[in-house]
Amino acid sequence: MDEALQHYTDLLGLIETDRDDQGRVYLKAWSEVDKFSVVLREADEPGCDFMAFKVLDEDTLNQLEKDLVTFGVEVEQVPAEELKDCGRRVRFTVPSGHAFELFADKKYTGKWGLSSVNPEAWPRGLRGMKAVRFDHCLFYGPELAAVYDIFVNVLGFDLAEQVLDPQGTRVSQFLTVSMKEHDIAFIHHEEPGKFHHASFHLETWEDVLRAADLITMTDTSIDIGPTRHGLTHGKTIYFFDPSGNRNEVFCGGDYFYPDHKPVTWTTDELGKAIFYHDRTLNERFMAVLT
Amino acid sequence: MDEALQHYTDLLGLIETDRDDQGRVYLKAWSEVDKFSVVLREADEPGCDFMAFKVLDEDTLNQLEKDLVTFGVEVEQVPAEELKDCGRRVRFTVPSGHAFELFADKKYTGKWGLSSVNPEAWPRGLRGMKAVRFDHCLFYGPELAAVYDIFVNVLGFDLAEQVLDPQGTRVSQFLTVSMKEHDIAFIHHEEPGKFHHASFHLETWEDVLRAADLITMTDTSIDIGPTRHGLTHGKTIYFFDPSGNRNEVFCGGDYFYPDHKPVTWTTDELGKAIFYHDRTLNERFMAVLT
Amino acid sequence: MDEALQHYTDLLGLIETDRDDQGRVYLKAWSEVDKFSVVLREADEPGCDFMAFKVLDEDTLNQLEKDLVTFGVEVEQVPAEELKDCGRRVRFTVPSGHAFELFADKKYTGKWGLSSVNPEAWPRGLRGMKAVRFDHCLFYGPELAAVYDIFVNVLGFDLAEQVLDPQGTRVSQFLTVSMKEHDIAFIHHEEPGKFHHASFHLETWEDVLRAADLITMTDTSIDIGPTRHGLTHGKTIYFFDPSGNRNEVFCGGDYFYPDHKPVTWTTDELGKAIFYHDRTLNERFMAVLT
Amino acid sequence: MDEALQHYTDLLGLIETDRDDQGRVYLKAWSEVDKFSVVLREADEPGCDFMAFKVLDEDTLNQLEKDLVTFGVEVEQVPAEELKDCGRRVRFTVPSGHAFELFADKKYTGKWGLSSVNPEAWPRGLRGMKAVRFDHCLFYGPELAAVYDIFVNVLGFDLAEQVLDPQGTRVSQFLTVSMKEHDIAFIHHEEPGKFHHASFHLETWEDVLRAADLITMTDTSIDIGPTRHGLTHGKTIYFFDPSGNRNEVFCGGDYFYPDHKPVTWTTDELGKAIFYHDRTLNERFMAVLT
Repeated sequence: MDEALQHYTDLLGLIETDRDDQGRVYLKAWSEVDKFSVVLREADEPGCDFMAFKVLDEDTLNQLEKDLVTFGVEVEQVPAEELKDCGRRVRFTVPSGHAFELFADKKYTGKWGLSSVNPEAWPRGLRGMKAVRFDHCLFYGPELAAVYDIFVNVLGFDLAEQVLDPQGTRVSQFLTVSMKEHDIAFIHHEEPGKFHHASFHLETWEDVLRAADLITMTDTSIDIGPTRHGLTHGKTIYFFDPSGNRNEVFCGGDYFYPDHKPVTWTTDELGKAIFYHDRTLNERFMAVLT
Repeated sequence: MDEALQHYTDLLGLIETDRDDQGRVYLKAWSEVDKFSVVLREADEPGCDFMAFKVLDEDTLNQLEKDLVTFGVEVEQVPAEELKDCGRRVRFTVPSGHAFELFADKKYTGKWGLSSVNPEAWPRGLRGMKAVRFDHCLFYGPELAAVYDIFVNVLGFDLAEQVLDPQGTRVSQFLTVSMKEHDIAFIHHEEPGKFHHASFHLETWEDVLRAADLITMTDTSIDIGPTRHGLTHGKTIYFFDPSGNRNEVFCGGDYFYPDHKPVTWTTDELGKAIFYHDRTLNERFMAVLT
Repeated sequence: MDEALQHYTDLLGLIETDRDDQGRVYLKAWSEVDKFSVVLREADEPGCDFMAFKVLDEDTLNQLEKDLVTFGVEVEQVPAEELKDCGRRVRFTVPSGHAFELFADKKYTGKWGLSSVNPEAWPRGLRGMKAVRFDHCLFYGPELAAVYDIFVNVLGFDLAEQVLDPQGTRVSQFLTVSMKEHDIAFIHHEEPGKFHHASFHLETWEDVLRAADLITMTDTSIDIGPTRHGLTHGKTIYFFDPSGNRNEVFCGGDYFYPDHKPVTWTTDELGKAIFYHDRTLNERFMAVLT
Repeated sequence: MDEALQHYTDLLGLIETDRDDQGRVYLKAWSEVDKFSVVLREADEPGCDFMAFKVLDEDTLNQLEKDLVTFGVEVEQVPAEELKDCGRRVRFTVPSGHAFELFADKKYTGKWGLSSVNPEAWPRGLRGMKAVRFDHCLFYGPELAAVYDIFVNVLGFDLAEQVLDPQGTRVSQFLTVSMKEHDIAFIHHEEPGKFHHASFHLETWEDVLRAADLITMTDTSIDIGPTRHGLTHGKTIYFFDPSGNRNEVFCGGDYFYPDHKPVTWTTDELGKAIFYHDRTLNERFMAVLT
C-alpha cells in the first residue's frame, strides 16, 4: 500500500484526503470538488473493483435505479458511509463483467488548495504530474452490445466514438455523459471483467512531457507514449502502478455534444486508432484484442 | 463586408460555408459539426443582433418555448430557412436588452476538412488563428437578476461564476449549460443591450501567442493580452474586428459540473477577476462598469 | 535582504549557494555550472553594482586587460576571493556610466540537483519560476557609440540588433558573444549608469505563463507581460523585486551567428520593437527614452 | 527527386531556393541567412555525401586548411561555384569514413519571408513542420578517437557529451562549436561511413507534436517519438524520407559553454541515454551498435 500510495500521490499528484478502518486510502485530484475520486485498498491482485458515477440528486438516483431494474439489471444496495462521507450507492454488474455504482451524495470539500472566493489559477504545493482530475476508465470484456444498451438506453450516455469490424460489429465503444469524448470506454475481449486503465487529466502537452520525464526519474514502468490516440485524439502516456495497474495521463482531445454523430474507426486502421503516431499496436495492446 | 470577412476568415480562421440573397455570409469554425455558427451582415454600426442556442430536439424547443411564455417572456417566431439550412427559431429579448434565439435543427455538415471515419487529428489548410469553435458571448446591461431567472429557472442554465459587490448584489454572472465555465456571461451596466465580445476557442496557450503575433502582423487593433482571466482562469487575448466589435480567442480555464458551487469574485478584487496578471482594469473595461 | 532573498529563491527559483562575512548572499540558477551568478548585497537604493563576464582562461583575461588599457580604458583590480570562490577580476567603467568585470575562474559546482553522469532531464525540487539561467542585462545611459567600441572592437562582441533613429544614430544596441541575441543591451538615455533589468531564461512560453501566475499569487509588482518583444522576438514578462529592481523572465527569441547582419529596428516602430503585441510603450518605458 | 523534394518542402517545411544544371535542388530553412543549407541530388542509394561547416572568413579557412594538412589530414579542393553561390570548399575525410567540408563564403539571402528592418516574429506561409534551421548530423563508424583529435584538436570543437563503456572507451561523442549540445555526433560502429540522421530544429514541444501528426497524416514512415533523448535532453521525433534517410526534428535540450565539463553517459544506461522515456533501444538502434 505504501508503494501504491507513493505512486498516486508523489508521482500522479493526487492528494490523500482520508483513510478508513478497513485500511482504505481516499484520494482526490486537486480540481475535484468532492472529497475523493479514487479509493485504494490492499488486494492480492491488481484490478478495479468498480467505477462509480455521481448522479444529479437523490431523485435521479431513485429513477435510474428503477430504470435499471425495469431493464432487468440486478442492483445491489451499498449503504451510506460504507465509504466515508459518501451517500448510498446502487451497484450493478454489466454483461462485460464489470461492476458499476451510482450515487448522489458525497461530501463537498471544494478544490484543493484554492479558495471558493477570488480563487487563484492553481494551487501551490502540488506534486509530481499534478493530475487535474480523474477522467475515465477503459474496460475490456464480452457482450459490448448489451453493455451499450444499459449505458445508452437506460443511463442516458451517448456513443461518441466506436470501432467497427468489417462486418459492422462494434468492437469498441466510447461512451459519454458530458462534453468529454469518453467518460467510459469498452473494448471487446473474450474474457470478462478485464481492466485496461484508469485515466487522469492533465492540462497541457507540456504536462504530458513532464509526466514522461517523471516516469523515467522514478523508474516507473512505462507502457507507451508520449503520443496521441486516433480515437478521441487525446495526447497521452500510459504507465503502470506498482501493482501492475495501467494508468494514463492525457490532455486535449476532441469534445462532444449530443448532436454529434459518432466518430467511427475501422479495424483495418486499428493501429492508428489506438496509437496515432506509430500506427501499430504494441504487444501489450495486441493481447487485449484476442 | 470584405474587410470583416477577411478578418474572420484569414485572421480568425473561420470558414465561409454559404451566403444568402440578403448578402449575409455564413461562417463556421473547423470543429463545429453544423453548417454555421457565425453570420455576418452589413450594418451601419457594430454589434450583435442576437445569440442563439441549439436545443436537443423539436420537443425540447416546444417545451422551452412554452416555459418562456408561461414565465412571461414574449417570444417571436422566426421561420425555418430565414437563415439558410436552419430550422425555425424562437426569439426573445431579456430584460438586459439582449436578444436570444433557440432552435433545434441546423444542417449537419460535420467537422471541416475531416472524415467522420478514421479522422485525422486536425484538418490541414486552416488559416490564421485556426479558431476551434465559437465559444461564448459577454453582454452588458441592466436587470441581471431578471436575466438570471430566465436563464437559470426557465432555460436550465447553471451559475458557474459570479461577481458580488459589498452589498452582495450580483454585478456579473457567468452561466453554463455544459462543462464550460460560461456559455454566456453578463456584466451589470446601466445602458441596455450592450455587446462586449464574442469569444472563440483555441487549443493551447501557444495558439494564444500565435494569435497575438498575427494580430500584430495584420495591424489589427488589440485590446489586451495575452493574459489570463481570474474569472474562469481562461488564457486570453482581446482584439477588435474592422467594425469595432471586440473578439476574444482563449484556451483553457476551469470546467463545470452541475454539483459545483458557484465561484465568487468580489468587486474589491475586480481588477484581478478580469485581468489576472495586471490586476487592474484598463480604461476600456472601466467604461463597461459605469 | 530577507524579502529580496525570498523573491529570488521562492519566486524566481534561484538557489542560495553561499553567504560571506559582508552579508552578501550568493545565488545561482539550476543549469549554471559555476557556484554563483547573482550576488545580493544590502544597499540604500536599488541598482546593479556591476555585471561580470567570464572569459575562457587566465591568458584571455590578461590579453583583454591589456587590450582595454591600450584602448584607453582604465582598469581596476579586484583580488581573488573578494567574492568567495571567484578568481581575480578586472573592473572597468564604460562611458555610459556602467561598471563591468572580467574574470576567468570561478568554482565549478556543476548543475544543481543533477549528476554529471547519466543526468536526468531536470532536477526535482525547484521552486517558483524555476529560472534556468541568468541571461543578460539591459542598461541605459549616454555615449552608446563609445560603449560599442569597447564591447565590439576590444572585447569581441558582435552587434546583433540595433535601433536607429531617423538620422541613423544608434539609440539602442544589443550585443552578443554567443548564439544569444543579446548578452548585454544598451538604450540611449541622458543620465548615466541607469539599470533597466536583469533577465533570466525560462524554457517555454508555458513557463512564462506560470511565471505570470506566480507574480499574481505572490502579490509581486508586475511591469508588463506576458508578451513578446519585437527586438530579439523573445517571449517575456517584466516585474519588480522588493527593492524596485526590474526583473525579466523570458524564453525563445532569435539566435545569432557571427555571419548574421544586425537586425535593425527604426524609432518610428519603437513601440512594436519593445512590446510586439501592444505596439506602444508603457509610461515606464517612455521614461527610459527621455 | 519529386518525392524527396515534397518530403523536404511540404512536410519538413524547407524552402527551395535554387536548382543547378546537375539537377541538384537547393533548400534552406526559414531562419537561415544563407542561400541554402541542404542540397538534394539523385542517387542510387540513400546517404549523406558530406556535411559542411561555415568558418568565420577566408583567413580562418586558410588557417584550418593548413592545420589539417599539418595534422596529416589529406584535403581536397572544391572550387567556388561547384555549388551555386558558394565559395571554395576544403574537403577531407575523417577516419570514421565520413567526408566533411569547410567553406567561408555563401550568398547571404537573409531570413526567408522576413525583412531585416523591423522584422515580424516569423514568416507567414511556412509549410508542414516549419523547420527553423538545419541543426546537426549523427554519423556512425570506427576510429572515434582519431575523429575526436581532428575535430577537437585541429578544428576547435569541444566535447559536450560522451558515452563511455565499462573500460572507459568513448563509444559516442557529441561535439560542438556553439552553444548547442552538438553540432555533430558520432557513434562507434565497425563499418565506416554510416549516416544515421540529419536533424532540424523546431521551436517547441508542441511543434514536435505537430510534426508527429503530420508524419501520420502524410503516411510517412516513423522511427520513434515523440520522446526525449537522455543525451542532450532534446525533445525529438525520428522518421524517414522517401529514400530511407532518417530525419530528426527536435526542440529544446541543454546548452553548452566552453567551461562546461563533458556530460557522460555510461553504456549500461544506453537505453535511457538514447530514448529517455522508453529506456530501451529499439531494434533499428540496436543495429547501429553492432
